[in-house]
Amino acid sequence: MKKVGIMAYGITPFTKEDQKIESILLKSAKNLFKNNPQINRNDIDAVLVSTNNNSKYLSPVLSEMIDIQPKIAHSIESLCNSGTNSIVSAYSYIASGLADMVLISGAERYDSPGQILEWDNSRGEYKHPIFWASIFTKSYKREFSISEEDLAIVPVKNHKQAKENPNAISNKIFSIQDVVNSKKLTEDIRLLDCSRPCTGSASIILASEATIRKNTDEPVWIAGIGQKTTSAGFTKNMSLSSMESTKLAGNAALKMANRTITDVDVAEIHDAFSVCEPMALESLGFSNLGNGINTIKELHETNNFKINPRGGLLGSGHPLGATGIAQTIEITQQIQSKANNRQVDNVNIGLVHNMSAAATSSTVLVLEK
Amino acid sequence: MKKVGIMAYGITPFTKEDQKIESILLKSAKNLFKNNPQINRNDIDAVLVSTNNNSKYLSPVLSEMIDIQPKIAHSIESLCNSGTNSIVSAYSYIASGLADMVLISGAERYDSPGQILEWDNSRGEYKHPIFWASIFTKSYKREFSISEEDLAIVPVKNHKQAKENPNAISNKIFSIQDVVNSKKLTEDIRLLDCSRPCTGSASIILASEATIRKNTDEPVWIAGIGQKTTSAGFTKNMSLSSMESTKLAGNAALKMANRTITDVDVAEIHDAFSVCEPMALESLGFSNLGNGINTIKELHETNNFKINPRGGLLGSGHPLGATGIAQTIEITQQIQSKANNRQVDNVNIGLVHNMSAAATSSTVLVLEK
Repeated sequence: MKKVGIMAYGITPFTKEDQKIESILLKSAKNLFKNNPQINRNDIDAVLVSTNNNSKYLSPVLSEMIDIQPKIAHSIESLCNSGTNSIVSAYSYIASGLADMVLISGAERYDSPGQILEWDNSRGEYKHPIFWASIFTKSYKREFSISEEDLAIVPVKNHKQAKENPNAISNKIFSIQDVVNSKKLTEDIRLLDCSRPCTGSASIILASEATIRKNTDEPVWIAGIGQKTTSAGFTKNMSLSSMESTKLAGNAALKMANRTITDVDVAEIHDAFSVCEPMALESLGFSNLGNGINTIKELHETNNFKINPRGGLLGSGHPLGATGIAQTIEITQQIQSKANNRQVDNVNIGLVHNMSAAATSSTVLVLEK
Repeated sequence: MKKVGIMAYGITPFTKEDQKIESILLKSAKNLFKNNPQINRNDIDAVLVSTNNNSKYLSPVLSEMIDIQPKIAHSIESLCNSGTNSIVSAYSYIASGLADMVLISGAERYDSPGQILEWDNSRGEYKHPIFWASIFTKSYKREFSISEEDLAIVPVKNHKQAKENPNAISNKIFSIQDVVNSKKLTEDIRLLDCSRPCTGSASIILASEATIRKNTDEPVWIAGIGQKTTSAGFTKNMSLSSMESTKLAGNAALKMANRTITDVDVAEIHDAFSVCEPMALESLGFSNLGNGINTIKELHETNNFKINPRGGLLGSGHPLGATGIAQTIEITQQIQSKANNRQVDNVNIGLVHNMSAAATSSTVLVLEK
C-alpha cells in the first residue's frame, strides 16, 4: 500500500461561542494555510468535512471560502468518531491514487445535534450519552471494585494536562475532592466526569509520500488503521465494562503497523466520560483488565503526559466532528516534538483512539515518525 | 489501480410514503440480500450510507439491522450527488486495500432537508432549487433560441420512459401541451419541468475483482471516475447555460476509462429540471453546444431509451441520497441486459452523471462489461 502521511494542520481554541458552522470550519483551515505558506492550495484534490451539524453541502462551501475547486467534496458523519472516519477516508483516496492531497476539516457547534441518540430505543427514555456512561460506570466500578474517588483521578489528571493546552476549553485544575463534590447528574456520574460539548474546529492535510517530502521536513506517517462497528445500541453489546470495538480496532491498527502496544510512546484516548479512559486503556492493552485506574494514577503521580497529553476530551472539550482530528494533530505534534509543555519524552510512535456511542464503533490510528 | 466492480444491488419503489429513514434504508438492503443469497454478508467490510437526512449514526444502525459488524461505517452527504460520492468513496476503500466488499445504501424521505439551499446568500431569498433552474432555463432558452415547447420534450420523453420502470414515482405519459399547460411556478419553470422529491432507497455492493468473480457471472466494472466541485453558489459560476463541473468530471472519467463519449451506449443524466438534460448532454459532449434538444427530440421520435432509460429524475422521482445509486443500478442493469422494456440495444459501456446544487459539483462514472 502507498505511504500516506500528515503534511499540515490547523486548529482553533475550543470554546462555548455561538458561531455559524461555516465560520468555525473556515477558521482552522485558514490557520492551516497561514502556518504552511509553502502549500499550493490548488493542489488539494479532495475536501472532506467532518461534522454532525445539519447544514448541507459544507465541503463545497468551505472549498469556495478558501478559493479552491477540488475534485472530491462531501461531508462525513459518524457521531463522535466522524473525525477519524474522515481521516481514514482521505487515506484511502490517496492510497488508491484517486487523490494526492486531501484537506480534512472537522467542526462542531456547542449545540451539536449529535449529542442525543434519538435512534436507540434500547435506551428507553434515556437517550443522552450520560446514561450509557452511567451504566458503564456502575458496571466498571462493581466489576473491579473501583470507588468514586479512584475514578476521579481521570478528570484530575486530564484537566491538569489541559492547562498546558492553549486550545482547551478548561484551564482549571481540580482535586479528587472537587470531582466527587461536583454536581451529581446520575447515580454514578458527576459533572466533572463529563466532557463538554463545545464549539471548535480542526483541519489536517494528508498527502502521498512524494508530495509530503516536497512540502515538509517533519513528516508523520499513518502506519496503522483499525476500525470496527459492533452495533448501534446496547442490545448487541456483550460487555458493559470493556470495549469490544476498541479492542478489535486497536489490534487491527497495531497489526497493520507491525507494532505492539508496548511500542506506543503517547496516546490520545476517547475519554468522553471518566470511565472511558481506564476501559479504553484496558481494551487497547495498555493496562491489564481492571488495572486502568492504577496506570492512570501512576502517570499522574509521575507527571507523565503519555495518555491524553492535550487533556483528553474531559479537559479539551468535545466538539464532536473536530475531536478525532484534534487528537490526530496532538499526536502529530508530539511526534514532531512540538507539544511545548505537554511534550512527552522520546516520542516515535503514537496512537489515536476515537469512538462513538457507547463504544459501539471505534477507530484506532498508529502514527510514526 | 485494482479493478473494482459492482457485485449486487437492491432498490425500492420511489413513492410519497411517510416512512422512517431507518425503514427506508433497510428495504433496499434487504432487497439486495434477497436477490443475492450467494453473498455472505459477514464479508462486508464497510457500510456507507448516502443521505441528506438529519438522523445520525445511520450506518451502524443499518449494520445492526442487517446483522453485520463492518470495520468502516459512516454517512456521506453532498446534497443531490451524495450517492455517487459514496460509490467513489467505496471504490477508493477497495482500490486502496482497506476493504474488499462495501455496501452503499442511499435513502431519503420526501421531505428531505437537502432541498433548500440555506447557505447560499448569493441567491437572496430564492433558496429553493427551482430558482437556479429558472435562471438556467431563461439563460439557456435565450442563448440558443429554445422555446418552452422545445424544452418540454425532456419531461415528455422521460415520463414515457419512466412508464417502463416499475420503481418510478410517475406512471403517466404527458404531451408537449400537458407540459406547457402545467402549473406555472416561476416565469420559466412549470410543474412538469421539475423532478419530485420522494421517498426511496437504493443499495449496491462494490467489491474487488477476485470477490466479484467468485460471486457473480455478470460483473460490471467501474472503469472511469471523474469528480469536480467548482463552487457552492452562483457567485463563482462562469456560465449559466453550460455546466463546467460536469464537463471537467466527464472528461476525467472518460480519460480514466480510456474512452471517448462516442463509445458510450447508454447514460443516466441528472435531469433535476428539464433544462438540465440538454445542458448536461452538451457539457458531456453527447451533443454540440445548443443542440441538446435536437438530440433529445431524435431519441424520443425513434423511441431510443439511450438517455435516462429509467425515466431520469423527472420520471423516476428524486430521493436525493438514493438518486446516484439508483442511476448506477440502472446502468448496471442495462449492461447486464436486464432492463426489460427499458433495454437499450447492444450496451457495453454506460455513463452515470450525478450533480448537486446548480451543477456546482458533478460526479461522472463510466461502467463497462
